[in-house]
Amino acid sequence: MIRDLTDAEARAALVNKWAVPDDVLPAWVAEMDYAVAPAITRALHEAVERGVTGYPALEHDGGALGAAYAGFARRRHGWEVDPGLVLPTVDVSAGVRLVLDALSDPGPVVLPLPAYAPQLDLPGVTGRERWDLPVTPDGDAYALDLDHLERLLERGARTLLLTQPHNPCGHVHTRAELEAVRDLVVRHGARVVSDEIHAPLVLPGAGHVPYLSLEGTADHAVALVAASKAFNTAGLKCAQVVSGDAATHARLTAVPMVRNDSWSSLGVVASVAAYTEGDAWLDALLVRLDEQRSLLADLLAEHLPAARMRPLEATYLAWLDLRSSGHDDPAAVALEHGRVRLAPGHDYHPGLVGHARLNVATSATRLSEIVRRLAVALSPR
Amino acid sequence: MIRDLTDAEARAALVNKWAVPDDVLPAWVAEMDYAVAPAITRALHEAVERGVTGYPALEHDGGALGAAYAGFARRRHGWEVDPGLVLPTVDVSAGVRLVLDALSDPGPVVLPLPAYAPQLDLPGVTGRERWDLPVTPDGDAYALDLDHLERLLERGARTLLLTQPHNPCGHVHTRAELEAVRDLVVRHGARVVSDEIHAPLVLPGAGHVPYLSLEGTADHAVALVAASKAFNTAGLKCAQVVSGDAATHARLTAVPMVRNDSWSSLGVVASVAAYTEGDAWLDALLVRLDEQRSLLADLLAEHLPAARMRPLEATYLAWLDLRSSGHDDPAAVALEHGRVRLAPGHDYHPGLVGHARLNVATSATRLSEIVRRLAVALSPR
Repeated sequence: MIRDLTDAEARAALVNKWAVPDDVLPAWVAEMDYAVAPAITRALHEAVERGVTGYPALEHDGGALGAAYAGFARRRHGWEVDPGLVLPTVDVSAGVRLVLDALSDPGPVVLPLPAYAPQLDLPGVTGRERWDLPVTPDGDAYALDLDHLERLLERGARTLLLTQPHNPCGHVHTRAELEAVRDLVVRHGARVVSDEIHAPLVLPGAGHVPYLSLEGTADHAVALVAASKAFNTAGLKCAQVVSGDAATHARLTAVPMVRNDSWSSLGVVASVAAYTEGDAWLDALLVRLDEQRSLLADLLAEHLPAARMRPLEATYLAWLDLRSSGHDDPAAVALEHGRVRLAPGHDYHPGLVGHARLNVATSATRLSEIVRRLAVALSPR
Repeated sequence: MIRDLTDAEARAALVNKWAVPDDVLPAWVAEMDYAVAPAITRALHEAVERGVTGYPALEHDGGALGAAYAGFARRRHGWEVDPGLVLPTVDVSAGVRLVLDALSDPGPVVLPLPAYAPQLDLPGVTGRERWDLPVTPDGDAYALDLDHLERLLERGARTLLLTQPHNPCGHVHTRAELEAVRDLVVRHGARVVSDEIHAPLVLPGAGHVPYLSLEGTADHAVALVAASKAFNTAGLKCAQVVSGDAATHARLTAVPMVRNDSWSSLGVVASVAAYTEGDAWLDALLVRLDEQRSLLADLLAEHLPAARMRPLEATYLAWLDLRSSGHDDPAAVALEHGRVRLAPGHDYHPGLVGHARLNVATSATRLSEIVRRLAVALSPR
């Protein structure tokens, strides 16, 4: 069911990820080298044939998209979402910008680091300070520093931008972790923006806990979700803001149209298809990504035994601690000497050396070659 | 070559414009009840088949889209555009927001009124004051009040948001008008943001003068352009910012990615197809819209002789002065008593009564029915 793209196919389809020289293997941008789910392709063809190229419907009651997402959330996460509280937005980052602008107090935004690189700029473009909450690269597991978070909230931080499951660290926050976060946020009257774009990509062994599924979160949180990461449709431009309550949703629909009217009609079509017809394909994808995760572990053990990596619980993005190689910027070394493009760790955590993000969502052959090349590139010359 | 959609087809394709009750004829949103150009449909099918659903290429040198737009601008407007100065953006309004954020001084933005309704909020979302420049609804022709503009610039306005060709007034600015604007702007060291989304829709008898084609504008202006209005692809989400010089382009490409990375990969595909293969279809469209314009004049003469309308030189949007009917909100009356949905004039010019915008881009039969219903609705009861 999961079909690997050939190099030629990948180059023709993934025009950003594969915009690398012919001799470079791309393992950077978060896109998968697999063919799009047939249900999505079919829905897009049908919509193109029908001429759905004009403005999408402005359905503030959730519409077909809200209903589709609510069904998906119920089946996949056991989460009851009110379809009427699902608002389309063009993409998750733009959605975070929207909710900061529309909902958050003007105070500082706490961002756990590492973070998805473009998020680093989100507080600034909304006129807010960014207060970093570094997660130590040492220690065996990813863990938010709750004492530090509490100090930041005490000092006046008004919003926590949570990414869960986490990109680039692949961590799935447990219910206990999220409850601890909630308790601190509630105590200080702050707000949570929960980027859950990777929720459908929780791998066997872990389970996604939607932040809004916790008691006592409805009035201070929104979730940003999308089919784009699980179904490889980031270029189709439709994400969703899920509000916890009607008052929050009403504040979001009351913003001037120019703050939120850029989602694409074909993005809606693809999202509805993914949410309503995508389960079997997604199940197959998770099996495949689980295999890729095992393969990566084997390959690292064989070729790069000194690399450190915490358990990859979700996403297809491996966060590699390569400090033992002695290179501050292993991604740059890998590109120059291994002709493999990883994402540099310091883009996700400014000042952090020796880390890189490696995308495992490709063929077994390519992943093997990627790790082999990485090992050669990083070895002493 | 221009194929009218049936009601059922239009309802299935134009999911926003046609989201009206069954007995209502929609003449509000700026979309055309015609089938999409075959070259665009073909290109979209091909891209869907290829799997072009991921991130679009980030080509800061203009790429295929820049080259396609430059060719279109040369052929259609006699305007030489450097393809390397063409930057994609998700849509024209978001592009205006981007350039205000990235280029304009923090001072007030001058907006001639009437204006495309969402534009009214653009200065505010960028933290700027909006200073209105009302264009009188009296007088025989649309004319910017240059004395008023000069006073606003003297008082500290820093940006003029120009829409040309004009929506909703259908006016094509002459070279002399634009030169007069330029002289004032240059004298006060201000900036012009020129929304030229309707440029491909200049009707026989007028000619589009790109603001940036005037001497002495390169360093203080950008143009916002798109294939979306002429080719009915507003839902595909790809517009372009054309900079006058490399320094301006460099400022735009230097902004944080989250300010400008939301355009769609299928929007790029559709835009390239429109710009490179769309000329014959567009020529046929202009013939057809010229016929619709004549038909509207005949229908108004017959059914609504007291309606005032300045020459429709561009766009398919007629700006009707219906003050003689005595109704402050003729669009509301038309909907209630005529079951025809127009766009209310006060959305475009707050405080202006008795105006409405009527979309003529439909079948001759529907347009006849729309005007007939409008006349009946507005007649004394």
